[in-house]
Amino acid sequence: MSRVLVTGAGGFIGRPACALLRERGFEVIDVGSPTSTETTYQVDLLDARAVDELVEKAAATHLLHLAWITTPQYWTALENVRWTAGSLHLVDAFRRRGGQRCVVAGTCAEYDWSYSRCIEDETPTTPATLYGTAKHALRLLLAAYAAQSGLSFAWGRVFFAYGPGERQARLVPTVIRGLVAGERVPCTQGTQRRDFLFVDDVADAFATIVASSVTGAINIGSGTAFSLRELVERIADKLDGRERLEFGALPIRDDDPPELVADVSKLTSEVGWHPRISLDVGITRTIDWWRAKAKPS
Amino acid sequence: MSRVLVTGAGGFIGRPACALLRERGFEVIDVGSPTSTETTYQVDLLDARAVDELVEKAAATHLLHLAWITTPQYWTALENVRWTAGSLHLVDAFRRRGGQRCVVAGTCAEYDWSYSRCIEDETPTTPATLYGTAKHALRLLLAAYAAQSGLSFAWGRVFFAYGPGERQARLVPTVIRGLVAGERVPCTQGTQRRDFLFVDDVADAFATIVASSVTGAINIGSGTAFSLRELVERIADKLDGRERLEFGALPIRDDDPPELVADVSKLTSEVGWHPRISLDVGITRTIDWWRAKAKPS
Repeated sequence: MSRVLVTGAGGFIGRPACALLRERGFEVIDVGSPTSTETTYQVDLLDARAVDELVEKAAATHLLHLAWITTPQYWTALENVRWTAGSLHLVDAFRRRGGQRCVVAGTCAEYDWSYSRCIEDETPTTPATLYGTAKHALRLLLAAYAAQSGLSFAWGRVFFAYGPGERQARLVPTVIRGLVAGERVPCTQGTQRRDFLFVDDVADAFATIVASSVTGAINIGSGTAFSLRELVERIADKLDGRERLEFGALPIRDDDPPELVADVSKLTSEVGWHPRISLDVGITRTIDWWRAKAKPS
Repeated sequence: MSRVLVTGAGGFIGRPACALLRERGFEVIDVGSPTSTETTYQVDLLDARAVDELVEKAAATHLLHLAWITTPQYWTALENVRWTAGSLHLVDAFRRRGGQRCVVAGTCAEYDWSYSRCIEDETPTTPATLYGTAKHALRLLLAAYAAQSGLSFAWGRVFFAYGPGERQARLVPTVIRGLVAGERVPCTQGTQRRDFLFVDDVADAFATIVASSVTGAINIGSGTAFSLRELVERIADKLDGRERLEFGALPIRDDDPPELVADVSKLTSEVGWHPRISLDVGITRTIDWWRAKAKPS
């Protein structure tokens, strides 16, 4: 039986990914941060000796490494460097312990955002942020390491995941919680077009990639861009709140590109994966989740 | 007084670099590998806790990080990944302890070798080897980290250093030792043109960069290419051994590019550094060093 070690297993993508990997017949060793209450194991992945012990105990054939900084400042946090170093150590320890296939979470922030449609191995990777640079450098190095060592390695570049469990401060939770609470919701003009994918679909794409033998960078997106305005209006329509949206109340940041969308040719043709959850269904599920959470228990 | 922590201080470049930094008024904390007999401190730089202790004790304002894998297999060694992780940890620990300026050794192997004259921030950096990729990824990440944290950071790309203390298996020591021993020396045709720099000059360039405030990648070379044949013949002429050179006895490797030379505009204009030791003097000193070493003590 294949045993997969999943880091960030208590996180936004990790939680559904563990469930989906179990459904596919994997034995899952789910690891969360030292304070996680939702995972079987809690390990500080920046502690090399703790990682060595974990890897030894896990004796996994597969690794799905999703853990990273989870603070809102992750774009600029200096901890990006420590997570890169820790990730290198984890993958190396995993392979030395007999691990065969490793899948790591990347990001669309690796790409040069002056290109709107991002294509693996074609669109330039010149990240504008420390976070994007850390992920880019990690991928470069792991790809070369894998080529040299024979490790099977894939890198899933996540675009814009939304759904239950997303951090409150982000767009979709902010809009839903504001409207559910009966408040007015200030927004930008919302002209920015993004590739949104429901978090269970992101997790399913990762689980599919783990179970496959496809290597290299793989965009994880829907392949279709919606404007933020369109997304927010769809949410509002389900909450009877369109008139409480204040478009233009917030400025669009200078570094916010007009469009970012994943080219999903590799995901659909090589991995053979397609999204299962429409934007409409995804939004409904997300609203339901936040409503349930808001209820006094 | 400025205190500089030097790693790889017992090595080929590190040894002369420490002496030159002391001449410039730096207090030098010289660190070698755990087996080094030539340095005041011996630390395993892949042991995070040992590095933390070292950095705490050193309380250095400057860091010159030269240490890396020293085995002949460094081009392909999987340990490149561990050295990248260890280097990230070292620099982060140094800055967090109050370190202000950091200079790290890079390599011409970061460049795409289909370009013969390599220019910083212009020639593509698409390394062909795991070693080159590790250094490239490390530089990318440290540059972004430095920009974010305010650390002053420079990266010295070493081309072809030669001189006393070079590993025996490399070209110059092999030729000198063979000719000194009266043997015939098999060579390639020697048409490959390379940018050679005497190791004391490489060390002096590093010491100058450490003491400067120049940031970013800086090529460390002479700016001039000589063919391997020319280099080897110059050595042979000093050892009366030209007829014992067997050009063409060894094949030129397919991945050996015809010419690699440093563009030294940045080194000469921004750092204000120029080589002090001619190829002729450098060869003489290197021969003398190997001769002294060959004598029974």
